[in-house]
Amino acid sequence: MSLDHAATKPHERLAAALTDDMAAVNAMIAARMASEHAPRIPEVTAHLVNAGGKRLRPMLTLAAARLCGYDGPYHIHLAATVEFIHTATLLHDDVVDESDKRRGRPTANLLWDNTSSVLVGDYLFARSFQLMVETGNLRVLDILANAAATIAEGEVLQMTAARNTRTTEDTYLKVVRGKTAALFSAATQVGGVIAAAPEDQVAALFAYGDALGIAFQIVDDLLDWQGDAGIGKNTGDDFREGKMTLPVIRAIAAGDEGERAFWVRTLEKRSQEAADLDHARDLLARHGTLDSTRADALMWAAQAKASLDALPDAPIRTMLADLADYVVARLV
Amino acid sequence: MSLDHAATKPHERLAAALTDDMAAVNAMIAARMASEHAPRIPEVTAHLVNAGGKRLRPMLTLAAARLCGYDGPYHIHLAATVEFIHTATLLHDDVVDESDKRRGRPTANLLWDNTSSVLVGDYLFARSFQLMVETGNLRVLDILANAAATIAEGEVLQMTAARNTRTTEDTYLKVVRGKTAALFSAATQVGGVIAAAPEDQVAALFAYGDALGIAFQIVDDLLDWQGDAGIGKNTGDDFREGKMTLPVIRAIAAGDEGERAFWVRTLEKRSQEAADLDHARDLLARHGTLDSTRADALMWAAQAKASLDALPDAPIRTMLADLADYVVARLV
Repeated sequence: MSLDHAATKPHERLAAALTDDMAAVNAMIAARMASEHAPRIPEVTAHLVNAGGKRLRPMLTLAAARLCGYDGPYHIHLAATVEFIHTATLLHDDVVDESDKRRGRPTANLLWDNTSSVLVGDYLFARSFQLMVETGNLRVLDILANAAATIAEGEVLQMTAARNTRTTEDTYLKVVRGKTAALFSAATQVGGVIAAAPEDQVAALFAYGDALGIAFQIVDDLLDWQGDAGIGKNTGDDFREGKMTLPVIRAIAAGDEGERAFWVRTLEKRSQEAADLDHARDLLARHGTLDSTRADALMWAAQAKASLDALPDAPIRTMLADLADYVVARLV
Repeated sequence: MSLDHAATKPHERLAAALTDDMAAVNAMIAARMASEHAPRIPEVTAHLVNAGGKRLRPMLTLAAARLCGYDGPYHIHLAATVEFIHTATLLHDDVVDESDKRRGRPTANLLWDNTSSVLVGDYLFARSFQLMVETGNLRVLDILANAAATIAEGEVLQMTAARNTRTTEDTYLKVVRGKTAALFSAATQVGGVIAAAPEDQVAALFAYGDALGIAFQIVDDLLDWQGDAGIGKNTGDDFREGKMTLPVIRAIAAGDEGERAFWVRTLEKRSQEAADLDHARDLLARHGTLDSTRADALMWAAQAKASLDALPDAPIRTMLADLADYVVARLV
């Protein structure tokens, strides 16, 4: 892989800088997703794990640990832990969302069944837990246990907020922290903790992961409205499912009574007609909420970069800063 | 509550002996199932937690800790942990089984939806994990992480073994250890570990929980065939769902070609007619497999009692022995 700055993306540069570590993580994932007794488990897991995800979250753990000078073995366990937690939540999400596509491929619940997705997700979650126990580091366990609770709570909150046109920006931010930022911030934070980094660096790593995750999710939600040929995501899915994301929450808040009735009909009652998606886009444009949401994403990315100041000045730190830019660059 | 031996059941005597501890466990469960942001979580959890279960598993943890002389605070955390893991698996089981009744009440997935069951289960699992991290005991974390993986693996194995008439007794035992015995044995073992009991006692507690759990599950599977007015379970459910339990596995192994064709049609192809359940019962009777399965349950209960020899001679030990008898007494 070329290391030429202009030719590569920041996550590719991170992967190149962490080649040996990532190989060790992939080997550990392959070894630990095996099950002697239940071959269905590695089948389902491999479908997701080999689906060509960028392994962003484990890479964040490795990068944080290396940036803080770690040279022990346990950043590998923690990176694999983080990827297993992520994979487990994807499996459960697909059941919850009744999805049929993920990363452009059929979802596990479509290829097998909901039962497999639920149970294999549980298995991976238990496996992730075994991996982190092996580090013998109670603080790392505490951070990851709290992240797991925040993730699940965020998912429940998202479910109960869906189709509720009274959802606030505050609730949206809680959902985003739960579904995305909690695992990003835990991934970076445990990298610092396992390296026994000073507290200000651990705090900076948490702040970076948190802001990066929020930027990442806001961008994802924006792309559902404005589209992006590269990601293979159908635009308008969130509208059809009644998901309350920032552009909509702001448009509802700024809208008049007639607009409010439109949102109640389409999102709460889910009575949607062919022209409704375009009309919804018009309303977002009228109130400038795609632009204001984009501004929020840029602000969070800037905040992520600023958090890095407390960390050692090294090539990996630059890549992490570039990653924050890259996450929002998808919007342009 | 009367403590008169003849008038009470062993789990009631255990509950009476552990009244203060159980009150502390119930208070901790109530406090930890709360969610500031997502009220759906305590709603769903309370439906199950308050449904009048016997709290058998947390009681085993408390009993084991007390029997080994523990006087610290963490047996309460561990008992609550065990109950949360149990509740989380019940929630996920109901999705998997598409059940509509549990303990005679509508299941959570019927009252709310599958999504709530999956996500609230995940939340309780994360909560259980936070509780055990609070004990600061890495060995306890290791035992419970392994139990969680065994439970999930057993559930997947059960799913892939269902409707497979080639399922062996060995696979059945693995499923039983996963779905039931792994949590029983972890519950008793961590009670000993938190009390810093000698290794032979910790091993004895594991062996007791393992054998008790196996006896418990074999009895449950038997009652699905022979019925028991007291448990509110529909007999014949396992036959209709194609679950491969010990009486059927043995009848298939002992049957001739015609019988085998019957089992393949009814269990594998699930083409069942009105008279098939009675015919299946006739085949079990012909090969004496209800009796031989009952003998196995009694053997496991005896093994559970024998394991107790290594533990201090105290009233709680007698109650645990009586509990092993009681589990199989449901059969008489």
